[in-house]
Amino acid sequence: MKLVECVPNFSEGRDPEKLDTIVGAMTAVEGVRLLDKEMDADHNRAVVTIIGEPEAVLEGAFRGIEKASELVDLTGHEGEHPRMGATDVCPFVPVKGVTMDDCVELAQRLGERVGGELEIPVFLYEAAATRPTRENLAKVRKGQFEGLRDEIGTNPAKDPDYGPKKIHPTAGATAIGARPFLVAYNINLDSADVAIAKKIANSIRHARGGFRYVKAMGFEIKDRGIVQVSINMVNYKGSPLFRVFETVKREAQRYGVNVVGSEIVGLVPAEALVACADFYLQLEDFKSEQVLENLLAEDEEE
Amino acid sequence: MKLVECVPNFSEGRDPEKLDTIVGAMTAVEGVRLLDKEMDADHNRAVVTIIGEPEAVLEGAFRGIEKASELVDLTGHEGEHPRMGATDVCPFVPVKGVTMDDCVELAQRLGERVGGELEIPVFLYEAAATRPTRENLAKVRKGQFEGLRDEIGTNPAKDPDYGPKKIHPTAGATAIGARPFLVAYNINLDSADVAIAKKIANSIRHARGGFRYVKAMGFEIKDRGIVQVSINMVNYKGSPLFRVFETVKREAQRYGVNVVGSEIVGLVPAEALVACADFYLQLEDFKSEQVLENLLAEDEEE
Repeated sequence: MKLVECVPNFSEGRDPEKLDTIVGAMTAVEGVRLLDKEMDADHNRAVVTIIGEPEAVLEGAFRGIEKASELVDLTGHEGEHPRMGATDVCPFVPVKGVTMDDCVELAQRLGERVGGELEIPVFLYEAAATRPTRENLAKVRKGQFEGLRDEIGTNPAKDPDYGPKKIHPTAGATAIGARPFLVAYNINLDSADVAIAKKIANSIRHARGGFRYVKAMGFEIKDRGIVQVSINMVNYKGSPLFRVFETVKREAQRYGVNVVGSEIVGLVPAEALVACADFYLQLEDFKSEQVLENLLAEDEEE
Repeated sequence: MKLVECVPNFSEGRDPEKLDTIVGAMTAVEGVRLLDKEMDADHNRAVVTIIGEPEAVLEGAFRGIEKASELVDLTGHEGEHPRMGATDVCPFVPVKGVTMDDCVELAQRLGERVGGELEIPVFLYEAAATRPTRENLAKVRKGQFEGLRDEIGTNPAKDPDYGPKKIHPTAGATAIGARPFLVAYNINLDSADVAIAKKIANSIRHARGGFRYVKAMGFEIKDRGIVQVSINMVNYKGSPLFRVFETVKREAQRYGVNVVGSEIVGLVPAEALVACADFYLQLEDFKSEQVLENLLAEDEEE
C-alpha cells in the first residue's frame, strides 16, 4: 500500500460549518481518511490533514480547494497568520512506499487542475519549487493577498506556475508543494526566564546557524511556571530528534537549567523514534527490517 | 488484522531437507508466513518462526508437529541442547490485536489435537501452564526424552495435560504454551575480561536478583577482543531495554569499562524501541496513537 499525507491550510478559522463542508468534500472521495483538523480563530485559519493512496488524496485535495474557493472570500479576511488564498497552502508528504519525487508530481498535477479548472494562480514551493526563490513559502507568500493582487500579472517574478496571470478575485492564490513529514516537538525547561528559552532556540534554529532542518522559538508556559523551546522538525531524517534534544539539554546546562521533559505534538512516524532508540542504545548494525512491523509491511507489499 | 507468532523448536539441526519438509508442511497452510528458520548442528535443533492470523497459525503449527513426528526420531538423537520431543517446544506469541489469553486458548486447542490425533503427550507451559511447577520450561523438560520415557505414566507429577500417559516412542513429548515476544539483546563492553561480563550478567539476571524478565550470560567475542553480556528479554514491557542497558552501563563503569555498543538479534516490536525514545527524550504524556503507523493500523481495524 502506498500512502501520501496532504495538509491543506484554509483561510477559515471561525466558522466550523464552513470548515466541515470543505472537509466533507475531501472525505467524500473514497480512500481519503481524515487524520486531523484544527481551527484557530486568532489566526483565522484551519489546518486539515488527510491521508490515503496517492490518487485518492490528489482528488480529495482538489475537491477541498474547489469547495474552499466557493466558501472563503479573501476580500474581507483578517487574521494574525499571513495568507494569500482561500486555500493558502497545500503540501503533499510522503508517508509509505512513496518518494518525494512522487509527491512533487502530485503537486504538479494538482497545480495544473487548480490553475486550469478553478482559475486560481498556483505557485509550486519547497521540493516542488520551479526556482530557488520559491522554495521558501514565506517568500512565495510575501505581500499576501492584498499585495499579490497588484503584483501578479505586472511583476514577472510573480508569474504563477499554473493558472492565470491574475489573482482570483475572492480565492486569491495557492501554494502547492511537497515536503517531508513535519514533527512538532517541544522541550520544557525548569526556568521561568523566557530569555533562556529564546537563546537556546536561537542556538538550534537554522536561521541562526543551527541545525539545517530545525525551526525553533522560545515561549513561556505560564501555568506551569516554566519555559519551552518550541520546535518544528521539518525533516527528522536530516536533523534527528535525539541530536536536537541533546543539544538543547547541553545548552540549558550552560545556564544551570535542566530539561524537565519534552513533548511530541500530534503525530510522529515510528522511524523518527526508532532512530532515537538506535542512538541511545548505541545499536550496532541495526536494520529497519528488524522492526517486526516493518518486516510485516514489506511482506504485504510483495 | 490479528497476528500471532508461533516459534516451534524441532529436534533436527543437521538435515536441512528434513527441516524444509517440516517448514513446507506449515507454510502450505494459507495465511502462514515464514519469518525465520535457523538450524544449529551442535545443538541438533531448529527454531522456526511463523506468523499469521490465529487460525492459520494454529493449523500451521499442527501440521509442523505432525510432520516432525514422522521425520524425527528421538531414540538416536544427541545434541547439546536439552530436548524431550521431535517438536520439543511450541509457544504462541501475541503480536497484534491478540491477547495473551487468546494465545493460551490456542495452546490448549493445539495441545488437544496433538495429544488426541498424534498421541504425543503434551505439557502446557509458561502463560498456558495448568500448575505453577509447569511455568518454567526447563522444569517441564527435566529428565529429557530418556528420563521422561520412564516417568510419564508412573509419576503422577508428570501426567500430561493432553494425550496418552505414555511417551510417544519416537516423537517423545511436547511442551506447548504462550509467552510474550522475546527480544534477543546483546551489550558489548570494551574489555577482554570475560569475568566482568559474567559479573554484570549476574547483576541483571532474574535468577540472581536482577530484573524479573531478564535472562543473561557473559561471553567472550574473540574476533573483536571484547566481551559481551548476552540477554534474553523475555518480556520487554515488564523489564524494558533502556533500563537494562543503563544498568549494564553503570555496572560496567564500576570496573572502569565502557559500553561500545549493543545489538538486537533478529526482530523487535516497534513499541520496544518507542519506549526507549520515550525514556531518553523524557517525553511527557506520549500516547502510542501518536505514532503514525499505530493510528493507521487502528483505522484499518475499524
